[in-house]
Amino acid sequence: VELTVFEIISIGNELLNGRTLNTNAHWLSSRITSLGGFVRRITVVRDELEEISSAVKEALNRGSDWIITSGGLGPTFDDLTLEGVAKALGLELELNEEALKMIAERYREMEREGALKAELTPHRLKMATLPRGSSPLRNPVGTAPGVLIRVNGSYVVCLPGVPSEMKAIFDEELAPLIESKIKRAFRAFRRARLVGVAESDLAPLIDEVRKRFGVYIKSHPVGRYEGKCRLELDVYAHRPDEEEARRLVDGALEALKEALSGKAERFELE
Amino acid sequence: VELTVFEIISIGNELLNGRTLNTNAHWLSSRITSLGGFVRRITVVRDELEEISSAVKEALNRGSDWIITSGGLGPTFDDLTLEGVAKALGLELELNEEALKMIAERYREMEREGALKAELTPHRLKMATLPRGSSPLRNPVGTAPGVLIRVNGSYVVCLPGVPSEMKAIFDEELAPLIESKIKRAFRAFRRARLVGVAESDLAPLIDEVRKRFGVYIKSHPVGRYEGKCRLELDVYAHRPDEEEARRLVDGALEALKEALSGKAERFELE
Repeated sequence: VELTVFEIISIGNELLNGRTLNTNAHWLSSRITSLGGFVRRITVVRDELEEISSAVKEALNRGSDWIITSGGLGPTFDDLTLEGVAKALGLELELNEEALKMIAERYREMEREGALKAELTPHRLKMATLPRGSSPLRNPVGTAPGVLIRVNGSYVVCLPGVPSEMKAIFDEELAPLIESKIKRAFRAFRRARLVGVAESDLAPLIDEVRKRFGVYIKSHPVGRYEGKCRLELDVYAHRPDEEEARRLVDGALEALKEALSGKAERFELE
Repeated sequence: VELTVFEIISIGNELLNGRTLNTNAHWLSSRITSLGGFVRRITVVRDELEEISSAVKEALNRGSDWIITSGGLGPTFDDLTLEGVAKALGLELELNEEALKMIAERYREMEREGALKAELTPHRLKMATLPRGSSPLRNPVGTAPGVLIRVNGSYVVCLPGVPSEMKAIFDEELAPLIESKIKRAFRAFRRARLVGVAESDLAPLIDEVRKRFGVYIKSHPVGRYEGKCRLELDVYAHRPDEEEARRLVDGALEALKEALSGKAERFELE
């Protein structure tokens, strides 16, 4: 199955010093997976030009189809994402008229609401200063627009770090584009819960079943209960055909259940 | 200030397909920061040999002092961390007698509790098969030991992905070692909460104050309340001397408060 490969780059010191749990990358990987994409890697880097630029370059060199960054699009000195991306791609930064319009409109709206004065200060113009050739992505809930750049066969997308802004731009602007470009493979998935068998005892059976059915099986130990080992078994199949993918997952689970009857105390499908 | 640089590598497909929120990396970065370390990067890769090995190699090439992996130490076919690390470091895998003793003892204990039979199957021996020269780290709550490898001037440490096991090995085995090796810099930190000033309007003041006091200031927008912008301002200073670090942070906050009096509606120190 041919896959469309994504990488996520999360930018922000707060993600590396224990301040902030990286829920953005989790949300993005979940949404991308359900759109049919394959997330190969998540990289979290600090608000430093070299770190951002090298992370983007490395992802491009791995041949990933989509590179999605979040964080570092705001007005402060340490919002360096666009400078880092421009450096990685060898592009100049320039004032983007479309982005400027979006930002000016947003500040006028906030002025009407009494939150601030709408003048376009240098720190605000910074948010409209994008790598040459960028398309801004409308931010319906905040100020800094997202940014989309086509690079040879790949896309680099920059989203804000504020979760509500990142999600809104992803869902409203990006998801439709991803859906129209993605190589579709259906991903069937079911989970079984198992009591009374240790992961190490299950390992040979998993090996056998995953080879027989061409599925991926991942076991997750979830502690012990009254001395008994408990496991979750996630079974996945990626196939162009939905029916076939489901059939393989169900077949693998049936085979596991049969092989474990009399050994496992419980085998429940979720 | 000279820092001891850490990288975290999280290994597991479940961290990339939306199944699991990466709380391990967050916990590790928080603990490492409070021990005085500097976390430069977090990389999340799939359960694939090439991905693991390239991530470890890249971190070593960046000259990081400590590389801490979590995940992929278990008994199943897709637990590939030790193979990936061995490949990255050019080391053979071999049965480690000390690790074997730990594992055998653990299984005998579980047999006494009636959870399983203690025989050392190939899948269990796999957990004692470590890169040559490794030191196993006792796992007080699970089976797979952690692994410590000294590589030139750096340390590569492999911890399990099950959070309770990762935390126990870190706290009991690793933290004392890190504390004895780390270059100590005191990190002073205080947070202010601010209402009624937009991040873009605050940006020039932040620039000025951070330069004047030699501190790091990060502004985090936290939405609007009754139309007013709300911000959190995190102020940090790293200095060999604790007293000096605290003085700089307090001075910077005082200067911010003064400059904002009459502009911000509220300025509260946490």
